[in-house]
Amino acid sequence: MEKRVYNFNPGPAALPLSVLKEIKEDLISYKGEGLSILEMSHRGKTFESIIKQADSLLREVMAIPTGYKIIFMQGGATLQFAAVPLNLLPDNQSADYVITGSWAKSAFKEAQKLNKKVRSAASSESSNFDHIPAEFSLDPNAAYVHITSNNTIFGTQWHKYPETSLVPLVCDMSSDIACRPVDVSKFALIYAGAQKNIGPAGITIVIIRDDLLQKSPNNIPTMTNYKLIAEKESLYNTPPTFSIYVLKLVMEWIKKEGGLDKIGKINQQKADLVYNVIDAGGFYRGTVQKANRSIMNVTFRLPSEDLENKFVSEAKEKNMIGLKGHRSVGGIRASLYNAVSLEAVQALANFMKEFEKKNG
Amino acid sequence: MEKRVYNFNPGPAALPLSVLKEIKEDLISYKGEGLSILEMSHRGKTFESIIKQADSLLREVMAIPTGYKIIFMQGGATLQFAAVPLNLLPDNQSADYVITGSWAKSAFKEAQKLNKKVRSAASSESSNFDHIPAEFSLDPNAAYVHITSNNTIFGTQWHKYPETSLVPLVCDMSSDIACRPVDVSKFALIYAGAQKNIGPAGITIVIIRDDLLQKSPNNIPTMTNYKLIAEKESLYNTPPTFSIYVLKLVMEWIKKEGGLDKIGKINQQKADLVYNVIDAGGFYRGTVQKANRSIMNVTFRLPSEDLENKFVSEAKEKNMIGLKGHRSVGGIRASLYNAVSLEAVQALANFMKEFEKKNG
Repeated sequence: MEKRVYNFNPGPAALPLSVLKEIKEDLISYKGEGLSILEMSHRGKTFESIIKQADSLLREVMAIPTGYKIIFMQGGATLQFAAVPLNLLPDNQSADYVITGSWAKSAFKEAQKLNKKVRSAASSESSNFDHIPAEFSLDPNAAYVHITSNNTIFGTQWHKYPETSLVPLVCDMSSDIACRPVDVSKFALIYAGAQKNIGPAGITIVIIRDDLLQKSPNNIPTMTNYKLIAEKESLYNTPPTFSIYVLKLVMEWIKKEGGLDKIGKINQQKADLVYNVIDAGGFYRGTVQKANRSIMNVTFRLPSEDLENKFVSEAKEKNMIGLKGHRSVGGIRASLYNAVSLEAVQALANFMKEFEKKNG
Repeated sequence: MEKRVYNFNPGPAALPLSVLKEIKEDLISYKGEGLSILEMSHRGKTFESIIKQADSLLREVMAIPTGYKIIFMQGGATLQFAAVPLNLLPDNQSADYVITGSWAKSAFKEAQKLNKKVRSAASSESSNFDHIPAEFSLDPNAAYVHITSNNTIFGTQWHKYPETSLVPLVCDMSSDIACRPVDVSKFALIYAGAQKNIGPAGITIVIIRDDLLQKSPNNIPTMTNYKLIAEKESLYNTPPTFSIYVLKLVMEWIKKEGGLDKIGKINQQKADLVYNVIDAGGFYRGTVQKANRSIMNVTFRLPSEDLENKFVSEAKEKNMIGLKGHRSVGGIRASLYNAVSLEAVQALANFMKEFEKKNG
């Protein structure tokens, strides 16, 4: 049995051990075919079956209704920051952005950079993104409203998505996709880099309502063009085959674990374990408003930066890694994505109590 | 010992067995760190060291002179088809394209699609891309000249690159990068999807002369912006960490094999083995002009399509896969990338002789 740490990395992040074991098992000769998945043609029968399964499993796990297409892309959320306005925002229209964190702001700025007309419908920047704005003024003529479902750096999360009436709702779900059941039909488009909750770095999924596929103009880079890539079933060019394969394995793992109902409950349980320690005494201080706390990224401060450094290094001695807050905000961040076990979070909560006892 | 086939796939393609073994060995706990490379932060020390090594090894192996930057990107050559004109082709200038195959044509069309002014400086399309044009009229004021060093589908390759004087030479080297020594200083920009000769799908390398980095305008998608990504040392957002890791291992393997001098000689030897069988009798018919034959993709026809199908299926019975020609041209194609062993090619040449004896 190889040594394994408790991995609280913010992304790329923990993968289920059973998934890693399966990758390892099949690495040199995939299912006895005599070559690695890394060496296979993306147009061969084996990979064709893998990408179809990745599609149908994601569809099943997330209960994606008919009328939506799944596209596998590259370039992470940052390429989507451009692709969304390039595909969906004609020059004679404007789009609304709800700015709840650094990535939300980057999405907004990327659209501006491309000379697109965008509006901030609400922002929590003035209070250092410590909450999700409860109120915002939506433009009824907007091409779309863009939100970021979970703010990895600040540790906030939308627990109830906004009603946008007829305006299409576009969501960057990179850091909480498949963390619990979601009503996909509320969204016109969902995109997510896989590397936090559903796979490795290097693959981005886009779930798009069929009618929006008609909006893509022709004069944009092909690799950002939803319509063209969808028409080719995500095989316009060579896709990141290995990453799609791992994503497929993660979907199988989610199913085996009992699906998103079950996963969602465990994630809530995990988050509660840490938040309960934070709330129990005055030692740890949560950095965001309670109603908007993320169940994926739990952010908190200790009484001093020295103690924070001590916390991180003592945690590491106890095999808990990835707890340092984002360099732009400091503090502590525990990322509790799907593949982080309840056992790992229990260990973290126990360590936090001990640490408080010794240093409080 | 696991079963391994002889893999003549056109890409994704064969990887060195020793590389696959190392990936497997370290998959669950990378160098005993307790987590997989797939689970590591791209900002952690371990990955930072990996990406730096990938950079310096590629630099060493390809003898990239100072004054060039290596950028790791996503999206394959197709994203570069857009990135090159977006970064390097201002609206008041034109660029020249030498059209030697399907991908060269796609690069040209992508620039047109983006409303860029481009010119075909030469094309071999009228003879079904059976050669590399020997003459072309270059525009001395062009922003750049774009060539495709190896034409995977048709089986032609530039063996002597064109002199473009002061006009920057841009090259898509996706299917023959690192197949032999190349004088990088002749190029202003080289790009290549890794999945044929230097790694897995999902990572694209760009080698760009420093002065060109100043040309990137601000109003293009960030993930196509050479300047911005270079400034962040390819860590603008989460890169495809696993693919970069594998690329690093492949570079180490090239070094161990004796570098590109040695690799180039073996590749020539491999290609000769197959071309000699083609040229020995009248049974096999090479599809391209001899002077432009690719040492990476050997394309040929048999007397009939029935025989071609029989060839592919009998080869498969002998554990040789990936020999079917591209669906757009038919025939047979043997891709002999770096990781395809001399032994594999010898087996193919022997099989070809036998097959000819039985069916000729």
